[in-house]
Amino acid sequence: MDMYCTSFPTSVAIADLGCSSGPNALFVASEIIEAVKWKCLQLRRRLPELSLLLNDLPGNDFNTIFRTLPEFYQRKGLNQGNGTRHGHCFVSAVPGSFYGRLFPTKSLHFVHSSSSLHWLSQVPPELQSGSNMPLNKGKIFISKTSPPCVSDAYAKQFHRDFSLFLKCRAEEIITGGQMVLTVMSRRSSDPVVEEHRYLWELLGQVLIDMASEGLIEVEKVDSFDAPFYAPSPEELKREIESEGSFGIKRLTLFEASWGHDDQTGYNKTAEEKDPMLGELSTAKRVAKGIRAVVESMLESHFGEAMIEDFFSRYCELLEDYCIGNDTKVFNIVTVMARK
Amino acid sequence: MDMYCTSFPTSVAIADLGCSSGPNALFVASEIIEAVKWKCLQLRRRLPELSLLLNDLPGNDFNTIFRTLPEFYQRKGLNQGNGTRHGHCFVSAVPGSFYGRLFPTKSLHFVHSSSSLHWLSQVPPELQSGSNMPLNKGKIFISKTSPPCVSDAYAKQFHRDFSLFLKCRAEEIITGGQMVLTVMSRRSSDPVVEEHRYLWELLGQVLIDMASEGLIEVEKVDSFDAPFYAPSPEELKREIESEGSFGIKRLTLFEASWGHDDQTGYNKTAEEKDPMLGELSTAKRVAKGIRAVVESMLESHFGEAMIEDFFSRYCELLEDYCIGNDTKVFNIVTVMARK
Repeated sequence: MDMYCTSFPTSVAIADLGCSSGPNALFVASEIIEAVKWKCLQLRRRLPELSLLLNDLPGNDFNTIFRTLPEFYQRKGLNQGNGTRHGHCFVSAVPGSFYGRLFPTKSLHFVHSSSSLHWLSQVPPELQSGSNMPLNKGKIFISKTSPPCVSDAYAKQFHRDFSLFLKCRAEEIITGGQMVLTVMSRRSSDPVVEEHRYLWELLGQVLIDMASEGLIEVEKVDSFDAPFYAPSPEELKREIESEGSFGIKRLTLFEASWGHDDQTGYNKTAEEKDPMLGELSTAKRVAKGIRAVVESMLESHFGEAMIEDFFSRYCELLEDYCIGNDTKVFNIVTVMARK
Repeated sequence: MDMYCTSFPTSVAIADLGCSSGPNALFVASEIIEAVKWKCLQLRRRLPELSLLLNDLPGNDFNTIFRTLPEFYQRKGLNQGNGTRHGHCFVSAVPGSFYGRLFPTKSLHFVHSSSSLHWLSQVPPELQSGSNMPLNKGKIFISKTSPPCVSDAYAKQFHRDFSLFLKCRAEEIITGGQMVLTVMSRRSSDPVVEEHRYLWELLGQVLIDMASEGLIEVEKVDSFDAPFYAPSPEELKREIESEGSFGIKRLTLFEASWGHDDQTGYNKTAEEKDPMLGELSTAKRVAKGIRAVVESMLESHFGEAMIEDFFSRYCELLEDYCIGNDTKVFNIVTVMARK
């Protein structure tokens, strides 16, 4: 609303980067439309033309999103067609990596990206270079036992990727345009992320267990590292400021739970609970959430055969871990405007 | 090139309406890129940013097109990413019917559509209205034995659809922008298209044969009509002129063959012939081509079970028909500029 009320453009281009596919692929687009509609109603202005540009990698299932569009237009009271009573809304898909240009110069008003920018464009190449001795032996991410060069390599890859992301978006977003990013984070400046230990530490533990039983190759475990990095709030702020194209309007760390331990104090009925996850234990919810994200990575590295066994072992470790340990996720949300 | 050289835009938006999915989905986009690249090289100009907007109905398989994009960018020497040596090219998909708005106001420089606009948005509703007696009994398109109200209904539906198409594109294309349309046509003003008789007449004949053998219901045949119309050159010209937003630069009727009876006089080697259709007889080529287009329509009306039998019968009728009859296709290509 803030962005819209600055210049009242007759046509607003909104991009969602890393939209994925599934029931929530159009969720943010939907929220943004509602915000603009509400503001227009309040100001008695005609709704501007809205372009919703959905981005994800070329392998994303855009077909499934497209098939929900006729119903989406109807539900939102928007016309793609020739109606004039309501505003026009144009949804399109832009496949490609956001660590590169995706849109024409100065063509975007608003960019959103949630839970995507903690994925690096690649595993830091320093981890796999030259020597026969893997740098991060027996671990798949920055761990307490990893040598400092491992966390350095990860921090450098994040710097290369995120500064390129900012540079590309700076070319694409008009002056005064805004960007809202949500990214997994860590509380401390220490790169060993104690609070996400149930994630990569436990996943790594399962790999080691399976290798020790001969179910997967030890070399495969040594050569596997997660293309992931959770920057600290200070680190993210530093990157945005040093790139220089955007002014930070807000940068906040927040906690999110896996949906089980609701902190509102309000007891949901069974129907109100997440219809996809129902009454599952926290461990099972976390395992499902993590599987949705890392399955394809593991499958392409270790093969399909190990997947079911892997996640059933991971879920078992999680069940133990969840007794007395927290499974919160720490995120940063940052709002910035193109200078 | 003509459009590009009029104003030398720094960013060119090109839409292909009805792009379909498959090996030739990016064919026109590819030709257009080559034309602009060639012109820029000749004029020693920097390549403009290119936006390729691929449109088809929401049910189209865009995923398959997207998966060919990394190879497409590489082959064209274009970067989606952060390279600057070559130009930027942004490919996106815009799902929806072109008988309605698809793009923001004044956002397009060039629109192309091939073999799509002879498909109507729906079967003329007049054919199926009210009375118990089907208007076009035993036929599935305008036929010699169809009453005049049938060809009137088809002509009216074409008028409604095509004028809406022009109106929507007129809003989307910038002044001076151009549009190239290729559409199936007929030579005479008579709506009974003698030259495409092997198409709807033979398809209808197969349906009647199958109904007489009890393989499909007679009522289903009576209620099936093709959402198709092949305008004459005069008719298309009249529509464009009466809508008024576009000036016609060229409107030509041309013949196309189904690829077997090559008229160049040049004998292709086996390798040079169409790799998909190889050495098939004309009848088999035509049957495959027609099947690619009408199978989904027949399947949704008559069910999947009849499909194989239907096309094997159609191919048999075609084999007879091809002895002494021509299977040319008549098309119009028209080039117009937004006033």
